[in-house]
Amino acid sequence: MKLDNTANGVYSIAPTPFLDDGSIDWNSVDRMTDFYFEAGCDGFTILGVLGEASKMDAEEALALAARVIKRAGGKPIIVGVSAPGFAAMRSLSRKVMDMGAAAVMIAPGAGLKTDDQITAYFRNAVDAVGDDVPWVLQDYPHSTGVTMSNNVVRKVVTENPSLVVLKHEDWPGLDKITTLRGWEKDGSMRRISILVGNNGLFLDFELDRGVDGANTGYAFPDMLVEAVTLAKAGRREEAHDLFDAHLPLIRYDQQPGVGLAVRKYVLKRRGVLSSAAMRKPSPAFSPETRNEVDYLLARLARHDVRAKV
Amino acid sequence: MKLDNTANGVYSIAPTPFLDDGSIDWNSVDRMTDFYFEAGCDGFTILGVLGEASKMDAEEALALAARVIKRAGGKPIIVGVSAPGFAAMRSLSRKVMDMGAAAVMIAPGAGLKTDDQITAYFRNAVDAVGDDVPWVLQDYPHSTGVTMSNNVVRKVVTENPSLVVLKHEDWPGLDKITTLRGWEKDGSMRRISILVGNNGLFLDFELDRGVDGANTGYAFPDMLVEAVTLAKAGRREEAHDLFDAHLPLIRYDQQPGVGLAVRKYVLKRRGVLSSAAMRKPSPAFSPETRNEVDYLLARLARHDVRAKV
Amino acid sequence: MKLDNTANGVYSIAPTPFLDDGSIDWNSVDRMTDFYFEAGCDGFTILGVLGEASKMDAEEALALAARVIKRAGGKPIIVGVSAPGFAAMRSLSRKVMDMGAAAVMIAPGAGLKTDDQITAYFRNAVDAVGDDVPWVLQDYPHSTGVTMSNNVVRKVVTENPSLVVLKHEDWPGLDKITTLRGWEKDGSMRRISILVGNNGLFLDFELDRGVDGANTGYAFPDMLVEAVTLAKAGRREEAHDLFDAHLPLIRYDQQPGVGLAVRKYVLKRRGVLSSAAMRKPSPAFSPETRNEVDYLLARLARHDVRAKV
Amino acid sequence: MKLDNTANGVYSIAPTPFLDDGSIDWNSVDRMTDFYFEAGCDGFTILGVLGEASKMDAEEALALAARVIKRAGGKPIIVGVSAPGFAAMRSLSRKVMDMGAAAVMIAPGAGLKTDDQITAYFRNAVDAVGDDVPWVLQDYPHSTGVTMSNNVVRKVVTENPSLVVLKHEDWPGLDKITTLRGWEKDGSMRRISILVGNNGLFLDFELDRGVDGANTGYAFPDMLVEAVTLAKAGRREEAHDLFDAHLPLIRYDQQPGVGLAVRKYVLKRRGVLSSAAMRKPSPAFSPETRNEVDYLLARLARHDVRAKV
Repeated sequence: MKLDNTANGVYSIAPTPFLDDGSIDWNSVDRMTDFYFEAGCDGFTILGVLGEASKMDAEEALALAARVIKRAGGKPIIVGVSAPGFAAMRSLSRKVMDMGAAAVMIAPGAGLKTDDQITAYFRNAVDAVGDDVPWVLQDYPHSTGVTMSNNVVRKVVTENPSLVVLKHEDWPGLDKITTLRGWEKDGSMRRISILVGNNGLFLDFELDRGVDGANTGYAFPDMLVEAVTLAKAGRREEAHDLFDAHLPLIRYDQQPGVGLAVRKYVLKRRGVLSSAAMRKPSPAFSPETRNEVDYLLARLARHDVRAKV
Repeated sequence: MKLDNTANGVYSIAPTPFLDDGSIDWNSVDRMTDFYFEAGCDGFTILGVLGEASKMDAEEALALAARVIKRAGGKPIIVGVSAPGFAAMRSLSRKVMDMGAAAVMIAPGAGLKTDDQITAYFRNAVDAVGDDVPWVLQDYPHSTGVTMSNNVVRKVVTENPSLVVLKHEDWPGLDKITTLRGWEKDGSMRRISILVGNNGLFLDFELDRGVDGANTGYAFPDMLVEAVTLAKAGRREEAHDLFDAHLPLIRYDQQPGVGLAVRKYVLKRRGVLSSAAMRKPSPAFSPETRNEVDYLLARLARHDVRAKV
Repeated sequence: MKLDNTANGVYSIAPTPFLDDGSIDWNSVDRMTDFYFEAGCDGFTILGVLGEASKMDAEEALALAARVIKRAGGKPIIVGVSAPGFAAMRSLSRKVMDMGAAAVMIAPGAGLKTDDQITAYFRNAVDAVGDDVPWVLQDYPHSTGVTMSNNVVRKVVTENPSLVVLKHEDWPGLDKITTLRGWEKDGSMRRISILVGNNGLFLDFELDRGVDGANTGYAFPDMLVEAVTLAKAGRREEAHDLFDAHLPLIRYDQQPGVGLAVRKYVLKRRGVLSSAAMRKPSPAFSPETRNEVDYLLARLARHDVRAKV
Repeated sequence: MKLDNTANGVYSIAPTPFLDDGSIDWNSVDRMTDFYFEAGCDGFTILGVLGEASKMDAEEALALAARVIKRAGGKPIIVGVSAPGFAAMRSLSRKVMDMGAAAVMIAPGAGLKTDDQITAYFRNAVDAVGDDVPWVLQDYPHSTGVTMSNNVVRKVVTENPSLVVLKHEDWPGLDKITTLRGWEKDGSMRRISILVGNNGLFLDFELDRGVDGANTGYAFPDMLVEAVTLAKAGRREEAHDLFDAHLPLIRYDQQPGVGLAVRKYVLKRRGVLSSAAMRKPSPAFSPETRNEVDYLLARLARHDVRAKV
């Protein structure tokens, strides 16, 4: 099933499970796939930054996509296809769509500066992957170095009907959501799905601002699902209470670099992954860091039984 | 009294109070100065980023420093002197030290890349301001664009005996603290004071890692003082509980750009500033943002009476 | 006399003459002022990058401007007023315009990214300096880090009638000239003066593309004057021949950083400056570099008697 | 034959010949391979920036390498293997070395900042490709965004014995050559080959400073060969005369982006390529640009018969 602009709920961002020797841990791949759906996710994304996509070669990426898509049994899997050039982006996109992926995710290429460069980039990208392939626009300036103004996002949305979801992780970004939602209402931009990233660091207010859900890798996707559900049911205080209980860990998890290691460690403690191993160059995961994560989980367990791991 | 490497506790970062017409609000300057010391701060820093230093001309900066230093009555005031060139840095430093400032704060200049460029920069800066002027090294890559490795910090500390405080706001930065503290212990780096910034977003664990206090602009410096005191008294759980209650607001406050507007707004609500006005180019402070801050304060007030404003 | 959009010919960029001890060399300031006009320049710019503006404090900058403007006796002097903030930009602009400056030069502030940020910046800058002050837009991405698309330049030109000259040093930039000139012709952009920078590295073809002249610091402004004159007289081959003879030195001079030291050295050899001293942080000027410049001058002297120095 | 640290002379950087429809033009690949050796090159490099490596997918890159290496018949071919991650770098390296490549070329990865990050990167890269694979270190900050100080280059050379050539295109970079050559002489750095890039824009003085040759894509590699030969024979004036005749075109060719299109166009005019087509996103190649290149070639033909094309 292909993704469209009604996407909502939680689409987790998945790590790539590795064994301690750096090879792909296929058992954990399967377990993780099941875990996300059991946690209530509507789908998930592979081969993003958290998925260490850049550390895998072309064959490995395809093998991972094939395994996950098959295991998902028709539920939506999004595949990150950002690449230094359009030929590689096209190859990967076509192959995973043939396998049954629901959509691809594309971030702006490194070094783009002006509005015109950015909009041209996405026209070329869509031309490369094919305009029949639904895609998620990743708006994550802290990682990509490319800043897209509200106007640029609107222009990309307007020029490319196959764009169905905005993965919103600009920072600060709350007013961007309000502006885009306003444009949808006044008819100056077509309706898209907005799912938020940034490990959910602002999910509480992003939900208040009207996003459709989350598309991020926090290691408690089940909490994200519950928070989104509460917010949509209008139970604002409860949503904030739940969110606030998790915020100390969310904030810790969100640190660039080491945050990936932390999320893998938590997923291991939760029994999803066999190993928290990352491929080189991997961020340091010091004993102090590990102790701090354990401490955060222990404190969280007072409020949320899911953290008793 | 000059600052030295035993500095500890809380040194707030102060905004510059403006009236709605953009002129300096001298009554609020005095009230703010009193407020910080009544809140238990050991001193505070003016003319940093939060102080909108770059939006003031040379005469205004000197007038502000004179007023604050006089009002502080001998308590330590640190003055940000970062400038595009050394002549301006020298002028401002000499003048504020003559007025009785306790120290100056220097960030690495824009565009520095290699380790050698960074260390040369600080040798030149110390040569410009005079090696008898104690200074605070601001390590804030997200704002300056200059990343200083652990080794570079050590080299700058070693080459410049007048450096007394590291304002630590690298991100992620917890392991950096542990490494630097380790070097102090094994004798490979002289002892400096480490005070943390980043609006205190990681203050809980930074205290666990052994920092001496905070040097940041969160609008509840009294909470920072209490958290530091609890941590130093070994009351770790209480320190974390207090911190966690404030974390939703700390996190909101920490957003680049808009965070400055939020902090001014909270200080106005607390009765410290008459106006939350910022000079151009000022970040947007939307009605939605204002409502969210009000909501955060209301939620915080359940845990901390100081937020009942 | 104020600068307007009919500016053409050569406006040199002037260094700030220093004595070996780093103080301003007032005798050389006067000699240099005379030199530029004797060389045929229509005016010149002070306090740009070549003028080491960032290494001077506010009083020095004003004193230099006063001396040069007086010495110029009514001929146009442009003053660079780029600053980290608008208050300092306003102070300097108002003061030098009162002294009789012809215009100010403004570059985009560091860190601007999106088209909307850039255009907002210049609206704020014009608001700060006053919309009655003619100004030169410096388009030099390699130095400022800010890339302005053709569309953004047009928008800035359109929104700010006080913009009279584009100092064009984008790279590559030849087609940008053709596009802007085309827009002037088809009426979609008002007429501005385009003067080129980049040490003249592409002056030959920039003249072919229709620019009005040069606004750059090559140490043979008399050659620039002659080349512009030849080109405007339709003597294309002669213009290229003259240019090509100078190109080995132009190219050498144009190197970032060290190029400033080279230009000061050549101006010293030409008898304009008493010293080639730069303020710290100054680029290295190695004995090898000096020998190479001497060699280039000796080779140039075969073609151009002005290089016999 | 593997490349070692005695490499000298000219190793051109080759474009990837495409037909107008964007597919690889195999006939031109063969003709180009022959051309470089007939021009006197000692070898050449494929899959660099000029080779549009990022616009090809993994299979195409391998097919190109196979064809060129076979055609070269044992003469040295260097293959660019820079990639976003080490897995792809390893895959490509192993495969092309098995095919008979002489060496691989590696540039520092995007986003590296501190000296420690850079040196760690190359240790990891060597670990990935295997320490038996000779490699060329590409030092091209303008393109990679990574600046390597002299000390960092020395450390990378020292830590990685398989590094055999420095492709030097730092800018300004003449003193860097002198420093490195000095370190070789005083024994503080082992001997490496230094070949220069930057389209040869400073080749004249780089030869004077002691480099071993060029590794760049100027469309007259036969001129580069002659200039290197003259310089090595101590015929300095003749080397400079030859170089200066080509400098107007070299300078034009060296423009970022459009320079690649210019070089392909010149190679087409010289009969090497059937088409000057580039893959998307390709730089604009305007009619004005084409006319200017034709004009430069016509002027060059007065001095150098090779330009009569």
